[in-house]
Amino acid sequence: MKESAVDLYKSLLEGDRRAAARLITMVENGDPESREVLRQLHRYSGKAHIIGLTGSPGSGKSTLARGLASHYRQEGLSVGIIAVDPTSAFTGGALLGDRIRMQELSADPGVFIRSMGSRGALGGLAVATNGVINILDAFGKDVIMVETVGAGQVEIEVVKFTHTCLVITMPGGGDEIQAIKAGILEIGDIFVVNKSDREGAPRTAADLEMMLETKPGYDGAAWKPPIISTVALEGEGVVELAAAINSHRQFLEESGKLEEKTIQRMKAEVREILSQKVGRAAEEALTSEGPGEELLRRMAAREIDPHTAADEIAGYLFKGTRD
Amino acid sequence: MKESAVDLYKSLLEGDRRAAARLITMVENGDPESREVLRQLHRYSGKAHIIGLTGSPGSGKSTLARGLASHYRQEGLSVGIIAVDPTSAFTGGALLGDRIRMQELSADPGVFIRSMGSRGALGGLAVATNGVINILDAFGKDVIMVETVGAGQVEIEVVKFTHTCLVITMPGGGDEIQAIKAGILEIGDIFVVNKSDREGAPRTAADLEMMLETKPGYDGAAWKPPIISTVALEGEGVVELAAAINSHRQFLEESGKLEEKTIQRMKAEVREILSQKVGRAAEEALTSEGPGEELLRRMAAREIDPHTAADEIAGYLFKGTRD
Repeated sequence: MKESAVDLYKSLLEGDRRAAARLITMVENGDPESREVLRQLHRYSGKAHIIGLTGSPGSGKSTLARGLASHYRQEGLSVGIIAVDPTSAFTGGALLGDRIRMQELSADPGVFIRSMGSRGALGGLAVATNGVINILDAFGKDVIMVETVGAGQVEIEVVKFTHTCLVITMPGGGDEIQAIKAGILEIGDIFVVNKSDREGAPRTAADLEMMLETKPGYDGAAWKPPIISTVALEGEGVVELAAAINSHRQFLEESGKLEEKTIQRMKAEVREILSQKVGRAAEEALTSEGPGEELLRRMAAREIDPHTAADEIAGYLFKGTRD
Repeated sequence: MKESAVDLYKSLLEGDRRAAARLITMVENGDPESREVLRQLHRYSGKAHIIGLTGSPGSGKSTLARGLASHYRQEGLSVGIIAVDPTSAFTGGALLGDRIRMQELSADPGVFIRSMGSRGALGGLAVATNGVINILDAFGKDVIMVETVGAGQVEIEVVKFTHTCLVITMPGGGDEIQAIKAGILEIGDIFVVNKSDREGAPRTAADLEMMLETKPGYDGAAWKPPIISTVALEGEGVVELAAAINSHRQFLEESGKLEEKTIQRMKAEVREILSQKVGRAAEEALTSEGPGEELLRRMAAREIDPHTAADEIAGYLFKGTRD
């Protein structure tokens, strides 16, 4: 590591917020130096409970995250919040209010908040988010919340591999619940009906319950995802939600599933890092003189197709190619 | 190829819509058989002009795509529309109206419309979308429009590598335009201010123009992205937009950039296919007995970190490892 990275690394472990912020920026920018820091930090991480929050835009994820953060602070726990917003290339205005409210919270030194938007590099967001989780973990945060609109596959992957995944819904004409497809149903450890002071809330909770009960394997499941009703803006139901998260943590510890979840997250992380690495290798192979040039020429002439080209590149990247 | 795939493939080239629909479903499901079909189809594709439409939710992308489709139909061109909706895991209700309007259009045999949601496989959406583009291209569609909310990186990648990329905005308090970050500014070949009968439209167009003019390299650029005002619901500005798309096509042909764009798209496709392939290989390596088991155990014990584990896997997947 360069001198500066070593300094940042040491300062981070001593609890320096600015060092944490700077390291996070390095991770976001895909700075190669940050990879070395992440390697070193790994042994200091693994203590935080990582909570994922996902749900449609407007379901109140940020407000809930703030509510939970306040609750944890009262319990003397330190908190990290990572707001992953892949749509930030377009929105911005709508989130401004949220950001201001977040800033109020971040005046508390026990809370560290970071927003992350889409980055140019493909697959970069998931790798970067995992990196930021690991930094905040090594930084000593007891609870880390990762909040995402869950719009893209990559974002869903990030939330999927947290310890406790909250799926946030809100009352509606029933369509909202039906719109929660199987994939989302699978990832939720706890379901939240937020804005439950609105009309139709009991119906939404009932619909959700029915969907969960008909889920394959539900009957024999050791953990049955509870449905918690909240009004995040008023702080209603936050204590119950925190209790449910706590129960889930206990379940994970007692059932040995905590390690399983940790391993799943690491597996996903390794897969992401490798995909990114191979993306760079492919880019390099395709832009290099020689085989890459030749492949592109043959593709443009429609002599070979991208699948065959990928196989050829894999052929000289991989020792043995399988499909 | 299996008998059934061969049949579908032949029927597709003969113009059978049902064959196209079935092949697309195979591609969406990541059916290995579909890869073989895509290989074979490659030589029949490359004729369509591929238009990307991206913009924030509610900016009217679908309505614009419909408007353009009607225009092209009047000109005797056949049209394919692929609506990529990565948020469909959560939404659904809101798109219903759109889908009904789309169905009206799809009663016309000269128009082929397909909606695609998020798929489980990481990176799968981009690969699948490119596959569907190629099928519709080989199917003989003259114009293929790919519409996406541009929420995730993968979706932006898909649109980025079309021939002509439309960025759809709408009037607002100025925030909307400021929210269009550099990355989006880079990918637009044509900018659209839709809903331009709303208050503030001239201001939005002026803001956009200013942003484009201050873009690095704008002065010397051979193609200066035009800004087109439309009211898609009334069909206003659609003719002008189609003319701008046509001008861009001509520019691409005359400048030799058409081939460059095609190559860029194929490069991106190869990279995606390889990333997917390596994701599967990494998954396999990590779940296999022996080295994978050992790596996971060491990661869980915090002896090694995911970056080092990725390097080790790369070490036996790749011939030579680079970072």
